[in-house]
Amino acid sequence: MLNISCPMPKLDFDTINLGHGSGGVLTHRLLDAGVFSLLDNVWLREQHDGAKLDIEGPVAFTTDSFVVSPIFFPGGNIGDLAVNGTVNDLAMCGAIPKFLSLGLILEEGLEIAELWEVLVAIRNACAAAGVHVVTGDTKVVERGKGDKIFINTTGIGTYHPKASIHMSRVEVGDKIILSGPLANHGICIMSKREGLEFETDVETDSTFLSDLTLDLLDHFGEDIHFFRDPTRGGLGTVMAEIAHQGQMGIDLFQKSLPMDDQVAGACEMLGLDPLYVANEGLFVTFVKAEAAEAVVDCLHQHQKGQRAAIIGEVTEEHPGKVVLTSLIGGQRIVNMLPGEQLPRIC
Amino acid sequence: MLNISCPMPKLDFDTINLGHGSGGVLTHRLLDAGVFSLLDNVWLREQHDGAKLDIEGPVAFTTDSFVVSPIFFPGGNIGDLAVNGTVNDLAMCGAIPKFLSLGLILEEGLEIAELWEVLVAIRNACAAAGVHVVTGDTKVVERGKGDKIFINTTGIGTYHPKASIHMSRVEVGDKIILSGPLANHGICIMSKREGLEFETDVETDSTFLSDLTLDLLDHFGEDIHFFRDPTRGGLGTVMAEIAHQGQMGIDLFQKSLPMDDQVAGACEMLGLDPLYVANEGLFVTFVKAEAAEAVVDCLHQHQKGQRAAIIGEVTEEHPGKVVLTSLIGGQRIVNMLPGEQLPRIC
Repeated sequence: MLNISCPMPKLDFDTINLGHGSGGVLTHRLLDAGVFSLLDNVWLREQHDGAKLDIEGPVAFTTDSFVVSPIFFPGGNIGDLAVNGTVNDLAMCGAIPKFLSLGLILEEGLEIAELWEVLVAIRNACAAAGVHVVTGDTKVVERGKGDKIFINTTGIGTYHPKASIHMSRVEVGDKIILSGPLANHGICIMSKREGLEFETDVETDSTFLSDLTLDLLDHFGEDIHFFRDPTRGGLGTVMAEIAHQGQMGIDLFQKSLPMDDQVAGACEMLGLDPLYVANEGLFVTFVKAEAAEAVVDCLHQHQKGQRAAIIGEVTEEHPGKVVLTSLIGGQRIVNMLPGEQLPRIC
Repeated sequence: MLNISCPMPKLDFDTINLGHGSGGVLTHRLLDAGVFSLLDNVWLREQHDGAKLDIEGPVAFTTDSFVVSPIFFPGGNIGDLAVNGTVNDLAMCGAIPKFLSLGLILEEGLEIAELWEVLVAIRNACAAAGVHVVTGDTKVVERGKGDKIFINTTGIGTYHPKASIHMSRVEVGDKIILSGPLANHGICIMSKREGLEFETDVETDSTFLSDLTLDLLDHFGEDIHFFRDPTRGGLGTVMAEIAHQGQMGIDLFQKSLPMDDQVAGACEMLGLDPLYVANEGLFVTFVKAEAAEAVVDCLHQHQKGQRAAIIGEVTEEHPGKVVLTSLIGGQRIVNMLPGEQLPRIC
């Protein structure tokens, strides 16, 4: 994370009121003092209804709304989460993230200092990932009709020239690689929300992943068959989705799943299955078997990929199903998360 | 508006619960039964993290969140408003609207039947405007942390080959043309919200405007200098913004402003200045003086442009200011809306 110092501007209001969403003078004063100065770039400076982007070739396009509660948590806040989340959805397409839109829905009474901290996190996360917020919108709802701040980010990217990422490319024998340890984001939010006390705070793993995915595409090109980030619903749900959609069998090996000790301990204490806990800075990739070891080696070169591991493979057995082999050798089917384990995790 | 009949699917839940935002089974059942079937297209069918769009040349990119309350009102609902709003922001750039993302933030307890009606409106509005929802996201917040439904739509378009729409192109002598009668949307929402009784319901003017703007560009090309839709803040705020940003003087003539009688009556009764009431299906365009009459004639060919009129002009007097000449010949300065006249109008 870049450390860019951004003192808050002096404003003659401390909290958001409905006038900040009017489109009139107060909206302008908020935007001029805050958003425009902080996120300044040639596109925003136009202040037109939309941004004009010089892009060639096919475009990757993805959207995500963020409603995480609380909005501040160890290692991040809703601002960097919103940037990283959409950057990563582009990365999962095999795309080079380029541009974001930013839609803010603010609750009347939100402290300007909190909004500022979120905006600074947005700016820093954009700088780190090399993307620009080029168009935006701010709405305000009455107290009790929202919850501090909801953020929509919608992203545009161009495709890596060697990317051929599609479920149809996954084949029997493919190895499944996870880029890092499981369940940190979900446990971070839950511990903050429930006021649980661990010996050390678990931090969110929220980060951008496009440096890793693009490096893999540079080196392995079409041997990279598929990417997916196991956010809401966790690794288990995402694997079950892929097995179902592609009508392929997936074997997972519990002993290979990287996980931090205190996260594992927290999951045990709380009775949570880490397979269903949300992640924000992780991805799985399905790769040609022959390339798998080299892909893991490549990920290990990155600080974020130091704990990458082969966690499973695609099999012709049990099409449409995910089977986990436990530490003691037992097997069970991994289904999608049936209901809600932890609401508003992202 | 197309009339596409879409019976609601049978689901074994009547309301939205937190599980519908989990990313797990319930999310899938909701999406498979509802959103995917209703908005079906080749991009959505991929169910990838993002859509791959074959676009050449520069791209117009714009975002808008919709928090209108109530979500249903005479002539429309939050669904078609969200589609038309973003389509129109693209139109105001001189772009051909192509693709939308759809971000839903649902409140726990929202009735599925209401969600369905909104989705049907989204589908119909997309069909009418010729755009496609190609990627989306659904989140659920607890009861009392949202307000039924908030929608973000973010749009992508390509530029009309003859478009050269930019504030820097506005020049002294340009005529300012308004495409239709003022203030219908704001009065519609206010009358519905406050339970006022008029002799006839005022309906929202929400509609897509790209057919009009593209027709003008086809016929008049570079003689069309600027577009802007006077939504939040109304015509007065938008004019003051343009005068301020471009440091140009603007003269407006009250006698030329088209307005429906019952809307004018409602404004008088409620003490509202129609210049600050929101519109959703209107635009202003700044055009070369010599082309102005022909532009108005062209708009008159369209049902939506039947009431189009020249409402003012750009002057070298009073740079940065908007001056309105009233019906009786008096003059006053039109400033931006200082605070909030009517919250959550869009």
